[in-house]
Amino acid sequence: MRLDVAKGILEKNDTLAGDNRALFAKHGVFVVDLMASPGAGKTSTILTTIAALRERYRIAVIEGDIASNVDAEKIAAHGVPAVQINTGGACHLESDMIRRAVATLDLDDLDLLIIENVGNLVCPTDFDLGENAKVMILSIPEGHDKPYKYPNIFQVAEAVILNKHDTMSVFDFDEAEFRSIVASLNHAAPVFAMSATKGEGVEAWAEWLAARIEASRVAAREVRP
Amino acid sequence: MRLDVAKGILEKNDTLAGDNRALFAKHGVFVVDLMASPGAGKTSTILTTIAALRERYRIAVIEGDIASNVDAEKIAAHGVPAVQINTGGACHLESDMIRRAVATLDLDDLDLLIIENVGNLVCPTDFDLGENAKVMILSIPEGHDKPYKYPNIFQVAEAVILNKHDTMSVFDFDEAEFRSIVASLNHAAPVFAMSATKGEGVEAWAEWLAARIEASRVAAREVRP
Repeated sequence: MRLDVAKGILEKNDTLAGDNRALFAKHGVFVVDLMASPGAGKTSTILTTIAALRERYRIAVIEGDIASNVDAEKIAAHGVPAVQINTGGACHLESDMIRRAVATLDLDDLDLLIIENVGNLVCPTDFDLGENAKVMILSIPEGHDKPYKYPNIFQVAEAVILNKHDTMSVFDFDEAEFRSIVASLNHAAPVFAMSATKGEGVEAWAEWLAARIEASRVAAREVRP
Repeated sequence: MRLDVAKGILEKNDTLAGDNRALFAKHGVFVVDLMASPGAGKTSTILTTIAALRERYRIAVIEGDIASNVDAEKIAAHGVPAVQINTGGACHLESDMIRRAVATLDLDDLDLLIIENVGNLVCPTDFDLGENAKVMILSIPEGHDKPYKYPNIFQVAEAVILNKHDTMSVFDFDEAEFRSIVASLNHAAPVFAMSATKGEGVEAWAEWLAARIEASRVAAREVRP
């Protein structure tokens, strides 16, 4: 019974995600869905990504939270358009929320839209938002065993950011073991060691993201000559 | 529509939670539902709680995870009965899962049952498992702003453990601000600063829990003379 209910919600979501994807493609906007636990560093990763790429791309951010608009305010303080979605109680974003948030943005004035999903390693994995890529952040204090416990998010992510890397010496985190488990779940996903608040290790991640944006543009030209 | 679906699931869960609660009361078992983000230190908090209270109470643990049984193995290695629930994809435990896990335990041989919920600050708040108390753990690396973003979990918790307190110097965590926000959401909940892996600050939390167990026993005698 539970599964059927979930199925109906997911099917409706997937239909709307398709609409979102078509809209983003029409306007040439590349969309990243950023997923992580609460406090893993989603907002600081977005801020450092903006700093790295704002000269090359026009960027906007959609912030998903149960409550509060502190994250959208942090982003907007850097002069970047930011829309806050408060889900009320829902533990993930859905396509319909994205559709409504996007309606407040001028897509023709955008190259890159970063969606910060609600802090949760589980539910966001099932919900296609129409994004080009899902990316997940794990932070060092969470521990290297997390891919064992939350395998699905590591499987759906196109890239993994290993954040708060500067705190490695404080925690009992086995990076080789972590990379090995991630590789066993998803051999294609690069793992970027980073300290977002210190701006360390950002370049490789930003270059990867820029390359994905460029690849998407090339693909769009092939499809629509 | 979504809300109606959720309502049906919650009503069914609440009915089963009532059955669980009656079963626990009949056998004089006190039950704690421990909620936190992935990596906040649920399992290490359980281990240090067992060390502090195992001379006074007979303890068992139910471990909830999406996948893997690494946590149950860690607990069982300390000679404490541990049942692993793998939820498959579900991001929280429900009463029916607890009922089935409890069926594998001898309740007459137990005083305290600790349930480690799935790592998630959102969904577990809505699901009564029949426990006596919900307790939540926030760890220092997650940041002091989390009560703004996840107010509900701080509202339903009877106590808050502020874990990884020994890493305070590494992170920009404003403890006074954190305690103030928590108090505004839930003025009754004590906040226990702790470092579970180092066994620091455990005594106050363990004494609080023991007092809650004793209070529950007194109440049970009043109700059933």
